[in-house]
Amino acid sequence: MPLPPLVGLIMGSYSDIKHLEETIMVFKEFAVPFEARALSAHRTPAEVARWATEAEKMGLKVLIAAAGGAAALPGVVAAHTLLPVIGVPIPTALMNGMDSLLSIAQMPAGVPVATMACGMGGARNAGLLAVQILALADPKLAEMLQVSRRQMAAKVIERDNVLQEKIRNEYKI
Amino acid sequence: MPLPPLVGLIMGSYSDIKHLEETIMVFKEFAVPFEARALSAHRTPAEVARWATEAEKMGLKVLIAAAGGAAALPGVVAAHTLLPVIGVPIPTALMNGMDSLLSIAQMPAGVPVATMACGMGGARNAGLLAVQILALADPKLAEMLQVSRRQMAAKVIERDNVLQEKIRNEYKI
Amino acid sequence: MPLPPLVGLIMGSYSDIKHLEETIMVFKEFAVPFEARALSAHRTPAEVARWATEAEKMGLKVLIAAAGGAAALPGVVAAHTLLPVIGVPIPTALMNGMDSLLSIAQMPAGVPVATMACGMGGARNAGLLAVQILALADPKLAEMLQVSRRQMAAKVIERDNVLQEKIRNEYKI
Amino acid sequence: MPLPPLVGLIMGSYSDIKHLEETIMVFKEFAVPFEARALSAHRTPAEVARWATEAEKMGLKVLIAAAGGAAALPGVVAAHTLLPVIGVPIPTALMNGMDSLLSIAQMPAGVPVATMACGMGGARNAGLLAVQILALADPKLAEMLQVSRRQMAAKVIERDNVLQEKIRNEYKI
Amino acid sequence: MPLPPLVGLIMGSYSDIKHLEETIMVFKEFAVPFEARALSAHRTPAEVARWATEAEKMGLKVLIAAAGGAAALPGVVAAHTLLPVIGVPIPTALMNGMDSLLSIAQMPAGVPVATMACGMGGARNAGLLAVQILALADPKLAEMLQVSRRQMAAKVIERDNVLQEKIRNEYKI
Amino acid sequence: MPLPPLVGLIMGSYSDIKHLEETIMVFKEFAVPFEARALSAHRTPAEVARWATEAEKMGLKVLIAAAGGAAALPGVVAAHTLLPVIGVPIPTALMNGMDSLLSIAQMPAGVPVATMACGMGGARNAGLLAVQILALADPKLAEMLQVSRRQMAAKVIERDNVLQEKIRNEYKI
Amino acid sequence: MPLPPLVGLIMGSYSDIKHLEETIMVFKEFAVPFEARALSAHRTPAEVARWATEAEKMGLKVLIAAAGGAAALPGVVAAHTLLPVIGVPIPTALMNGMDSLLSIAQMPAGVPVATMACGMGGARNAGLLAVQILALADPKLAEMLQVSRRQMAAKVIERDNVLQEKIRNEYKI
Amino acid sequence: MPLPPLVGLIMGSYSDIKHLEETIMVFKEFAVPFEARALSAHRTPAEVARWATEAEKMGLKVLIAAAGGAAALPGVVAAHTLLPVIGVPIPTALMNGMDSLLSIAQMPAGVPVATMACGMGGARNAGLLAVQILALADPKLAEMLQVSRRQMAAKVIERDNVLQEKIRNEYKI
Repeated sequence: MPLPPLVGLIMGSYSDIKHLEETIMVFKEFAVPFEARALSAHRTPAEVARWATEAEKMGLKVLIAAAGGAAALPGVVAAHTLLPVIGVPIPTALMNGMDSLLSIAQMPAGVPVATMACGMGGARNAGLLAVQILALADPKLAEMLQVSRRQMAAKVIERDNVLQEKIRNEYKI
Repeated sequence: MPLPPLVGLIMGSYSDIKHLEETIMVFKEFAVPFEARALSAHRTPAEVARWATEAEKMGLKVLIAAAGGAAALPGVVAAHTLLPVIGVPIPTALMNGMDSLLSIAQMPAGVPVATMACGMGGARNAGLLAVQILALADPKLAEMLQVSRRQMAAKVIERDNVLQEKIRNEYKI
Repeated sequence: MPLPPLVGLIMGSYSDIKHLEETIMVFKEFAVPFEARALSAHRTPAEVARWATEAEKMGLKVLIAAAGGAAALPGVVAAHTLLPVIGVPIPTALMNGMDSLLSIAQMPAGVPVATMACGMGGARNAGLLAVQILALADPKLAEMLQVSRRQMAAKVIERDNVLQEKIRNEYKI
Repeated sequence: MPLPPLVGLIMGSYSDIKHLEETIMVFKEFAVPFEARALSAHRTPAEVARWATEAEKMGLKVLIAAAGGAAALPGVVAAHTLLPVIGVPIPTALMNGMDSLLSIAQMPAGVPVATMACGMGGARNAGLLAVQILALADPKLAEMLQVSRRQMAAKVIERDNVLQEKIRNEYKI
Repeated sequence: MPLPPLVGLIMGSYSDIKHLEETIMVFKEFAVPFEARALSAHRTPAEVARWATEAEKMGLKVLIAAAGGAAALPGVVAAHTLLPVIGVPIPTALMNGMDSLLSIAQMPAGVPVATMACGMGGARNAGLLAVQILALADPKLAEMLQVSRRQMAAKVIERDNVLQEKIRNEYKI
Repeated sequence: MPLPPLVGLIMGSYSDIKHLEETIMVFKEFAVPFEARALSAHRTPAEVARWATEAEKMGLKVLIAAAGGAAALPGVVAAHTLLPVIGVPIPTALMNGMDSLLSIAQMPAGVPVATMACGMGGARNAGLLAVQILALADPKLAEMLQVSRRQMAAKVIERDNVLQEKIRNEYKI
Repeated sequence: MPLPPLVGLIMGSYSDIKHLEETIMVFKEFAVPFEARALSAHRTPAEVARWATEAEKMGLKVLIAAAGGAAALPGVVAAHTLLPVIGVPIPTALMNGMDSLLSIAQMPAGVPVATMACGMGGARNAGLLAVQILALADPKLAEMLQVSRRQMAAKVIERDNVLQEKIRNEYKI
Repeated sequence: MPLPPLVGLIMGSYSDIKHLEETIMVFKEFAVPFEARALSAHRTPAEVARWATEAEKMGLKVLIAAAGGAAALPGVVAAHTLLPVIGVPIPTALMNGMDSLLSIAQMPAGVPVATMACGMGGARNAGLLAVQILALADPKLAEMLQVSRRQMAAKVIERDNVLQEKIRNEYKI
């Protein structure tokens, strides 16, 4: 039987899923049970309100909301819960996602949304931040985060060595 | 006994009222009964949803929603009604109101918001557009609009005459 | 014999029609008779002025004007009529359509233009807002709008179910 | 009897005159007869169209049009004449005048507007460009321009000397 | 004896404290023990690195980092810890804080920073998000958050009533 | 023997010629003799200074300068001549040409550059503005401009008729 | 007798000196002899070209050029010398100095300008970068830089201590 | 045996190397020994700090740091050294690299970064600026720079001749 989800991932449109694969990869990597929903703050406001309102009771600990353009979803979710809400700006064809980023980041006092990067790893970071929050109460997750970050650094250093080698070989001055 | 309101004016914060005086002046000028609410999409989402959902039943014909920053209010109102919704971006201290404008204008397909200018007469124009919509079914309002626009033009022309005179007098070349 | 048009759709250039297919789909969906014109505020100012001035007399109730770049068309149309005017910013190759959006949105007091999103469903929303305005005087249209919005929500929810299913199947944690 | 005006200066609002004092100073400095109008492309479109259409017949050689926000005036003027049209973006309280600049600069092919700086001497430069155009057919104006530019350079060099002196005296290292 | 701090608040410059008063008010309101540091990522990089590296060992659970301009501080802090890091963009005199916001938000994959609004309540929301994270393991805090949000809503509704009353009295139509 | 050139067209890089084909088409259309140069304000400053300084003596009447990025060329040319200088912002791969546009438009008082659109027909308009300036002293050119503009309008109206027809046929409602 | 200047500081306008006081303070602090000029790339192009061309021969090692708006000065200086050129964007009343920053930063390949921040300490950093370059050949300057940076860090840490103390005293939780 | 490197080139990600080929070409062209590293300010902060701290001792004279998005690398490197640091903004898929540029340029007082263009030859100019700095103490490099710049100018002039010829042949008017 699957574990009850700890993170709720909601996106404004089913098609946003392609921008959120990195988020889900994080959940797999850290074995974090999650649920995913595709509900629109503008097209299905009642469903969004209900989901966000019941999220805490359902056992969710952190919510991630992704949206583009007017991108009201993260803020609307945050308005219905006191769980930490992470916002992921979905790139838009126009405006370079600046519209998404500003719509999510510029929340009024009282209702925070933890805004991630638009593109540039924002989707992966949303997952990681959720894990970091869960890890505060879960030493095994904290341990896994340490390992993951060390591996990330090791991979950078490995490729740094490749680069140094390559430059030494190719550019004899 | 007052007439039942035809326009619903909602703002995200009580303090926004100072940016909406021109909207209200339009209602006075055209004798359009209206109601005004100060409810926040993020702080009082249920109240906003209820008001917008019941707006049509209450006899309202047009809604005007003003907000700044993440500015979700106009879109959230539009999500709960099929009445025409006019959005007024409230200038923010930072970002020059560009955040407000983009948050309101960039609505997804299916839920339109008629966005006005940020500053530059947006508040007055919100009132006027509401009157223009009401005037489609009210010949007296249509008549008043014609008069009002002619007066506006006359005032421009009057000041144009003042300018021409002034230039002729001051700059003899 | 065709019904007389209720909505006038004007675009600054014939080539803009490809950005307005969604607008026209709305008119078909709601059986709203419309006329379409391709006239430029800068290249054919007299024709634009004449069309906008006579629009009301011709029985039109709502005007939609689409343009890109300096995008004066919606404002110029609005200057010649008291019908509600909806502006659609056409994306430009450069500036991401920010130029189109600002040129249309930042109208001075006295002459409102209901600005839609640049891209992101702005074309469809222009059609829908026109229908919402017409529906104030046409209960059948109002009914159709209710149905359309319920269908839109149903489609979201259907795809939300697909997503939930898919995630449960693919990501067993 | 005053000379017939050679330059037509039009502004979207009477209050713009305060941003155009430098333009008028240029006309005084070069003794260029001009006329000034305050007509709005959106509030008095017919008057603007008439003025621009008749400008050439009235003996005007260059037109200067100043406007802020949606700033359609320069483009609308240019649409009704084949005289060179110079556009001056009036700074707006919001958007830093970026809206004015883009609305004026991004004209479509076929109808040029010679756009000046928003602030930063745009008003003075509008006057100077008009004089430079007139000077092509007026050797005396051309001569005056040479003198004026030499004086401008001389003033820079004079203040450069003051600066050099001041630094040598104040910062002995 | 004071409780050991749970939240670490770091700012890039001592003078930033005036932008963070709302953050500290939240800590007082919720009786959350915190420590405050003023260390610069660019002027005292070793101290920042040491503080962030030791933060977890010192018992801190959440870090808040505020900075303006190039605003590297939140990212640098996040690079040295696996605690959740909240970034607060400090408004800059120039660029409207857009530089601060982008520098903080656009983090690469692997090192998340939870970005708050630039101005618009970002400082208060940073405190609230920290409390929301702490509340996941502290039912009393969770309870206080519920009360605080209900009070916020009640205050909005109270002022909404004032507005309705005021409008009814002042604008008899 | 060819006529001596009346317009000088200078571009910052040989490769800019592909953005200026429309400018040259205008010269062919109006039979305006011109010369074209590819000199860089940053790479060949002396050559640019010499060309601009001698332009008037060589019989040129109007200069057009096109550049991208820091785009100093139009301003540098204008600094060395009192002929009217028209600036054409060349689109850049990054920044959407906003950098080119601002670099050209924001000239200081005393040295005007007539800035055209970035993309959107700026190249063609540069040519047309040059012709409009030349036409002030050349009735035949003035006549040709009238014809050209009428043809442009006629073409718009012809395509407008095509559109009306097409819509009537395809969208029977 | 004063030492011959090593750094040349040029500004586009005498009035820019008020934005460059921090630059000069650096020269005093490090006892770096410098000369200051106020010459405009647009108003006195020949003087700028001559100064930049002769700078190396005059014994200057580094040039700093400050300008606002179209801000061609740093690039024009760099075009006439192979000394390192540092560019300082002067804030403009409009556009938030974004125009100055982009005009200076977006130089074409072949002619580098080392761009500093617009505001935010750009003036001081221009002086410091000049000193850092000179210090490569001057061990005493290198030593002084080390001391200066240690003092900067010490001052940050001192104020950090004040902050910690202040918070402990004022916010007893 | 290779010469010890004089320039240190560091990039935030191995994949940035493709944006830095022009930088390396400069080093080859001028026979400047360099080392290249791929280390991330956020993923490997300790390695970056160590490298920057030891750079001077290792004999490096100039550092070039390239990064995109939050782009903290150049500033973090500059925080750990007193060598001149040149920053290269790597274009980002979103935001047009404006995020990279602002993150690098807007450094606080005390820690300069010499910012290059985002795209537009920034990579090549970073290499050239490094050579210009080295050339202050290396007459042979200074000589090579003179030759290189003369060749660059000669190439421009050669292509200018091609253009003039081509225009004369193709556009007989």
